[in-house]
Amino acid sequence: MKLASLKAGRDGALVIVSRDLARALSARDVAPTLQAALDDWAGAAPRLAALAQSLEREPDLGVPFDERACASPLPRAFQWADGSAYVNHVELVRKARNAEMPPSFWTDPLMYQGGSDSFLGPRDPVVADEAFGIDMEGEIAVVVDDVAAGAAPEAAQQKIRLVMLVNDVSLRNLIPAELGKGFGFFQSKPSSAFSPVAVTPDELGDAWDGRKLSLPLSVDVNGKPFGRVEAGVDMTFDFPTLIAHAARTRPLSAGSIVGSGTVSNKDSDGGPGRPISEGGRGYACLAELRTIETIRTGAPTTPFLRHGDVVRIEMRDGRGRSIFGAIEQEIVNAKMAARTACRAPTSS
Amino acid sequence: MKLASLKAGRDGALVIVSRDLARALSARDVAPTLQAALDDWAGAAPRLAALAQSLEREPDLGVPFDERACASPLPRAFQWADGSAYVNHVELVRKARNAEMPPSFWTDPLMYQGGSDSFLGPRDPVVADEAFGIDMEGEIAVVVDDVAAGAAPEAAQQKIRLVMLVNDVSLRNLIPAELGKGFGFFQSKPSSAFSPVAVTPDELGDAWDGRKLSLPLSVDVNGKPFGRVEAGVDMTFDFPTLIAHAARTRPLSAGSIVGSGTVSNKDSDGGPGRPISEGGRGYACLAELRTIETIRTGAPTTPFLRHGDVVRIEMRDGRGRSIFGAIEQEIVNAKMAARTACRAPTSS
Repeated sequence: MKLASLKAGRDGALVIVSRDLARALSARDVAPTLQAALDDWAGAAPRLAALAQSLEREPDLGVPFDERACASPLPRAFQWADGSAYVNHVELVRKARNAEMPPSFWTDPLMYQGGSDSFLGPRDPVVADEAFGIDMEGEIAVVVDDVAAGAAPEAAQQKIRLVMLVNDVSLRNLIPAELGKGFGFFQSKPSSAFSPVAVTPDELGDAWDGRKLSLPLSVDVNGKPFGRVEAGVDMTFDFPTLIAHAARTRPLSAGSIVGSGTVSNKDSDGGPGRPISEGGRGYACLAELRTIETIRTGAPTTPFLRHGDVVRIEMRDGRGRSIFGAIEQEIVNAKMAARTACRAPTSS
Repeated sequence: MKLASLKAGRDGALVIVSRDLARALSARDVAPTLQAALDDWAGAAPRLAALAQSLEREPDLGVPFDERACASPLPRAFQWADGSAYVNHVELVRKARNAEMPPSFWTDPLMYQGGSDSFLGPRDPVVADEAFGIDMEGEIAVVVDDVAAGAAPEAAQQKIRLVMLVNDVSLRNLIPAELGKGFGFFQSKPSSAFSPVAVTPDELGDAWDGRKLSLPLSVDVNGKPFGRVEAGVDMTFDFPTLIAHAARTRPLSAGSIVGSGTVSNKDSDGGPGRPISEGGRGYACLAELRTIETIRTGAPTTPFLRHGDVVRIEMRDGRGRSIFGAIEQEIVNAKMAARTACRAPTSS
């Protein structure tokens, strides 16, 4: 089934979304919010699945689904633990700041504790100072049920309840100083945004093998293809491994979100400099392209995101249908944000 | 007023606690949980205050308050942002692992994003492997209302709703490798525990100046005084500064917890080696004493916590009365934890 949270209160209003993302049906009678459903997944899931089946069966059921009316599936969460499973990404961005990558990074997952109290909606603007070096990071994330401390990857795999996409907004120019202090990211990782829709793994068919999602992730900047990165390729640590890493010394509570880190392929260019239109894969963040430019020419030529730029992150199935809906965010300053806030969401 | 969450469900059952910590009164009719109260503090606070006044006025009201029946005031929270406001602590523990402390640490607050999805109750055991180097960290924390992104310290100060104590459990032997990876703490910071009771700042009288709490924090190990550290002394960054730091690039949601970091005084010994009984202040974590031992003798002599050890963290007012109740936790292995879980809480 597919689930979304319409903007309403602090935790949104849970709706079931039809497979084609055209219609939505309130799930209020089962659980008012997605967190409430996750708090009792064993009880809620069969009832939500029954609603989803009705929605597929009865074409007149529900109301038009508007991605712009969505909050993130969990508008706030009790945990956002983001891995760096595509180690190629880490190696590249470290190169850009002349930081060596220890070989252990290929065997021991890297993970940071992200802020989870105030996620952006999938169509909300990103409000940030251009001087901070604003970048997107296109990622996959899973939402887990309760996971016991010390759980093995095999047990962790059984706890994956939902899959969604993320834009893990990053402020690149704040990162070197912040990581230099040794306590990890804080100010350099402002609020992330998640896809309008979170789906149960069974919706992914053969593309989901229980451990990773094998489909291309589309990242567009200002309407132009920037990345068509393969999420199933070059993922050094799969989701069960990432979840087990997060749970090594403490339990994870239902509704915890575990992220893959920026999807990144080793041969992003499909051969040096090959554009996406000719089979290159591109990138899921600007930092990687800037690193490639630096390696090739001595300096980056692609700027970070500017106010007015629009980032779109989406994933389509083998038949071209959007699975999760699209994250589409304009980069704005505080003044522009005030203006945007006055525009009520309209139907799509 | 004083608030606590009795163990019940995932978020506890909110109660008002009498000033002397003797009695508790259900706050169910105002808000079922502390998070629900914080989600609408302007509406809930006056009604909770009215209940608190009744409880003080009518000695027969309520039921006996049992600290052992408590979860942490927020059993799970949407954010746990822990500062290192007592920079002396950072300088000392860095010395112990031969890491230089940059001078900027005295002017730019250090803060890490902690896990907040599964806090321990104040009397719950700490389950961990002794080989991890188990340590306590006695701290003060505040719970804030919604804070706008970019809020100045003066605005942040107005958003402090509650004050409490923390045991920020740390696994010292996992820290060097984890911080070496550059993404901050994760496995080395298992679940923290908070004091049974959270109090509104007005309960602290003159000891609270809106920016910090000026009272000694008691830390006992196995019933013996280990620290009587002064929370109002050597706090380089006050709470408004810490909150503003956390909110620099993103808003903070109501119910976010901001911690002080380990309380630490520069002259912990009150002169070299002076015991607490003779006016020394001692320490709020073992790592600091071990560093002092290393500096003096070349090696630490005090071990980290062992299974069976008990840590107690408490704060008393000028007249010796416990303000927040006591965090009291036994260090156990998984086998001992299974045994403890079978013991039902009894009245105190």
